[in-house]
Amino acid sequence: MKSIMNNKHLFKDKVVLDVGCGTGILCMFAAKAGAKKVIGVECAGIYKQAKQIVKANGFEDVITLINGKMEDIDIGVEKVDIIISEWMGYFLLYESMLDTVIYARDKYLAKDGMLFPDRAQLFMTAIEDCEYREQKINFWDNVYGFDMSCIKEQALLEPLVDVCEPEQILSNEVPVLDINLYTCTLEELDFQSEFFLKLQRADYVHAFVAYFNVQFSKCHTKIGFSTGPRAEYTHWKQTVFYLDEPIVGEKGDLIKGHMKVNRNKGNPRDLDIKITSGLDDGRFKNERSYRLR
Amino acid sequence: MKSIMNNKHLFKDKVVLDVGCGTGILCMFAAKAGAKKVIGVECAGIYKQAKQIVKANGFEDVITLINGKMEDIDIGVEKVDIIISEWMGYFLLYESMLDTVIYARDKYLAKDGMLFPDRAQLFMTAIEDCEYREQKINFWDNVYGFDMSCIKEQALLEPLVDVCEPEQILSNEVPVLDINLYTCTLEELDFQSEFFLKLQRADYVHAFVAYFNVQFSKCHTKIGFSTGPRAEYTHWKQTVFYLDEPIVGEKGDLIKGHMKVNRNKGNPRDLDIKITSGLDDGRFKNERSYRLR
Repeated sequence: MKSIMNNKHLFKDKVVLDVGCGTGILCMFAAKAGAKKVIGVECAGIYKQAKQIVKANGFEDVITLINGKMEDIDIGVEKVDIIISEWMGYFLLYESMLDTVIYARDKYLAKDGMLFPDRAQLFMTAIEDCEYREQKINFWDNVYGFDMSCIKEQALLEPLVDVCEPEQILSNEVPVLDINLYTCTLEELDFQSEFFLKLQRADYVHAFVAYFNVQFSKCHTKIGFSTGPRAEYTHWKQTVFYLDEPIVGEKGDLIKGHMKVNRNKGNPRDLDIKITSGLDDGRFKNERSYRLR
Repeated sequence: MKSIMNNKHLFKDKVVLDVGCGTGILCMFAAKAGAKKVIGVECAGIYKQAKQIVKANGFEDVITLINGKMEDIDIGVEKVDIIISEWMGYFLLYESMLDTVIYARDKYLAKDGMLFPDRAQLFMTAIEDCEYREQKINFWDNVYGFDMSCIKEQALLEPLVDVCEPEQILSNEVPVLDINLYTCTLEELDFQSEFFLKLQRADYVHAFVAYFNVQFSKCHTKIGFSTGPRAEYTHWKQTVFYLDEPIVGEKGDLIKGHMKVNRNKGNPRDLDIKITSGLDDGRFKNERSYRLR
């Protein structure tokens, strides 16, 4: 919102497209910032409420809402000056609308048009999480006296979308993906990346944590936000990948990791994520496949 | 579990059916308590893990697991002595397996057979919840300066499954439904009930809260558990129904309410719930339809 309201000079008299407009809140900010015409596209049921909200706030003349899938509809103009969209999903890419934003960009964005946001980065860091490990994973080793360890596999397979405390972070935080919205392609979203994390204290590494930042680099003062453990809470929280066995690390130890992310072939909404990790010297090797679904 | 392990005399040499056995934990307790044969039926994917767990714990000879819907399968015996099942859903009845338990009872339970549990009661009470009301409902009146009040309707329509603090409770707690598992029919689950709540302090009534108890009345010492705000946490939490406008109550005031619960005709998994309420003297009348989905 700040990215729009503090940059009225960019929105003044422009034609704006909001991809997946939800309640229409970003459309209204764009209208308030002086846009000449705002088109909001929403395929979900919230479209009905968006209609009422736009009317209740007196923006009917400026904002046009369209109910449908971007790929199926006619937005009524050839080109737009600005595309705004809150397209990000959990782990940045899970059930995200980035593919729709790319489609809209290629079809509608004018030469020298702008994207809000226009850059997104995915980061990884290492955490200690003894409590969760005991309660939710090792728990299955002995459930009221019964061995249920086969459920552990299931618990480890699914990354956890949850909040981490800054105190749990054990290492530096490094980018594993950097998306330029102006140029990115669908193919780029299946990616792999090597990462190195340096431990800042002696502790157990129970999990890796992924989170993202987005940026609005065309703004007068660069604006962006982070969904990391040190930033303010967002509904995206963080995404936690538990290791089969913790890495026992000393201060200064280097973790060498490799991450591979692919849309699942059978169900392209799901993400298959493979993480290989261990200390740089070869100890504590871990390899695990995860599925975000 | 206590209901089984403290009542080995009831399980010794019996044939037991577990409806919706999940990980197989109740099957294993029944086997440990001396059952001659335990049949666990599960239609979900967890069946695979249940198989492994039963094997890992050495109960293969006693426990037979069947993957399928109760209504479609042959359990391999004419009659069973005991049916166990953790069939309860949120608000007791939402996505519950009670219909399957009734089916299994009518088809398989021997004369003088037992049900674990065999009684379930749904309770209502009144709470104060100013904080939630401000943050999640009145919030929509002014979202960064925009009027989004039409979303309030949506927020009020859906009962909230969440934990209430005992301090929030303003009144006595009264039953609105009492199910005898031995005799109940599917038709009984569409029900209506009048209820009266006496306020124990002067405060705002923002919502009604529903929760349930279950009982195992054939146990040597009667056993049961509650999912109420004063009981230990359970994953069922409580179910909160917010009022359009709070009732401003004085200590001793009587609230007269009426609740009507029906399975939705279009989608029988959904529950339509209508609550009429107000002070006994006619002030603060509220009427609202909710949908659990």
